[in-house]
Amino acid sequence: MRQTDYDLVIIGGGPAGLTAGIYAARARMNVVLYEKAAPGGQVIVSDWIENYPGFPDGISGYELGEKMLNQAKNLGLNIEIEDVTSIQVDGEIKTVNLAKKSVTTKTVIIASGASPKKLNIGESQFMGKGVSFCATCDGPFFRDKTVVAVGGGDTAVQESIFLTKFVKKLYLIHRRGELRATKILQERAHKNDKIEIIWDSVVSGMDGLFAVENVKVKNVKTGEEKDIKAQGCFIWIGITPNTAFVGDILNMDDGGFIYTNGNMETSVPGIFAAGDVRTTPLKQIVTAVGDAAIAVMSAEHYIENLQD
Amino acid sequence: MRQTDYDLVIIGGGPAGLTAGIYAARARMNVVLYEKAAPGGQVIVSDWIENYPGFPDGISGYELGEKMLNQAKNLGLNIEIEDVTSIQVDGEIKTVNLAKKSVTTKTVIIASGASPKKLNIGESQFMGKGVSFCATCDGPFFRDKTVVAVGGGDTAVQESIFLTKFVKKLYLIHRRGELRATKILQERAHKNDKIEIIWDSVVSGMDGLFAVENVKVKNVKTGEEKDIKAQGCFIWIGITPNTAFVGDILNMDDGGFIYTNGNMETSVPGIFAAGDVRTTPLKQIVTAVGDAAIAVMSAEHYIENLQD
Repeated sequence: MRQTDYDLVIIGGGPAGLTAGIYAARARMNVVLYEKAAPGGQVIVSDWIENYPGFPDGISGYELGEKMLNQAKNLGLNIEIEDVTSIQVDGEIKTVNLAKKSVTTKTVIIASGASPKKLNIGESQFMGKGVSFCATCDGPFFRDKTVVAVGGGDTAVQESIFLTKFVKKLYLIHRRGELRATKILQERAHKNDKIEIIWDSVVSGMDGLFAVENVKVKNVKTGEEKDIKAQGCFIWIGITPNTAFVGDILNMDDGGFIYTNGNMETSVPGIFAAGDVRTTPLKQIVTAVGDAAIAVMSAEHYIENLQD
Repeated sequence: MRQTDYDLVIIGGGPAGLTAGIYAARARMNVVLYEKAAPGGQVIVSDWIENYPGFPDGISGYELGEKMLNQAKNLGLNIEIEDVTSIQVDGEIKTVNLAKKSVTTKTVIIASGASPKKLNIGESQFMGKGVSFCATCDGPFFRDKTVVAVGGGDTAVQESIFLTKFVKKLYLIHRRGELRATKILQERAHKNDKIEIIWDSVVSGMDGLFAVENVKVKNVKTGEEKDIKAQGCFIWIGITPNTAFVGDILNMDDGGFIYTNGNMETSVPGIFAAGDVRTTPLKQIVTAVGDAAIAVMSAEHYIENLQD
């Protein structure tokens, strides 16, 4: 086949992308990783991580992201701060277009992650200081606390029920008069003594000195606003995969997450996906790093078969 | 349903089992982990691990295993040194039989791992000191070295080809006069200048002061023995999943590995498998820990559905 600039282009510098980089660099692939902002991904805004194995007392997200980055660099991974704008597929050759240049490659691993939708009511300053998007990750930090949760879909209700293993009281704020979640989840939420649903309402603000202390809730019908004394606010109003640059070249689910099989193969041979950007059953650092190692293995096998 | 002693029994204390324990303990499940020997699993015999993300300069297998164990303990996981002898399934209730007692549980996660077959010619003393069972893990440590590899199946040939990215020279020792690997892999091996196949031969011994320096190779037809100066010996003569206690209650592949889907569900509802013991595409610490988190999520969902 025609020569390409790279064997492998990795898109995204979170745990999935950096792990793909670690495996590919060790396997001596001709590889580059493109990250549009700061390597580390979502993990660097996590205040404290207790469930990534290897850190007995937990570790800050920032520190874990930095360690993964340094490990990849130590192994010789070439990391460039570049925004990928599109990918073109011409049979075995893939062209990855960046803001100011284009590169060709035999394989691509998409590890660009996903971003939880935000309320945009000033919650950013409380990220990791009471504001969370993940009950599995942060639930245990809210033992015997009062929290507010926002949303009405399956995730919001499922995660709220899970949170009641820890919290004293949970107020579920939903902008409509009934939940969108499946019936069985609704029934469980209604039966749960710790959950109080506040209908027709939105979170309109929050305040606190160092962390969340108070959440403002506004009734969208009456306009009435009230304060809830709460130490946490979990936001589950959707999650958007970072796939604008993918266009329609790959099969995706209704939410825009990339379909893969267990080998992380997408619908286009030679393009693989790993981590939160794919249709994974669980969005965690441990699942992202596992996906990434498998994606590199599959990319290697793909290239080996090209060479015959 | 009837009360059970536990929500979840985890079998195995390697990275998969300990990660399942970390997730289950944080999720406040009523959980116990049974490990028959020393917690840590295969990982503790790995001399040095460079590809587990989070350790920029690498970490010894022993230290990583210890960190994972302490993390699980810090989160309150109950770990008992017990040998599981069998599992009985009675609908939603599973009974896990140990040497001297039996416990009942709603769910089981099997994370008992797999053991590479050994030559039993004294290689144990050189584990992590030249003897390896994993090219992805240890290949980069053998840059510009001479190594011996043993086997003739797909894994042996595929991994040998991979090793030639690093090593100066690889002798592939095979006890028969032709390889068992698929034709295309055989062709690649034959074309590869760094690979020399030594037919009708076995490794009969090895020696060295602190690490492997010399590998003895014996022709099984002539009985003639010769020395190969080599710094490494990779053994790929098969891998056996640790599933004697499973009997025939679960669907397994021909090699005895447990079939699961992407949610780590086995053929019996409420029994899950994670890590090397299942039909995973890649046996690595990163894939084992990812599997484990998904298995716990699935176990939780299974239990939630029982309660309705």
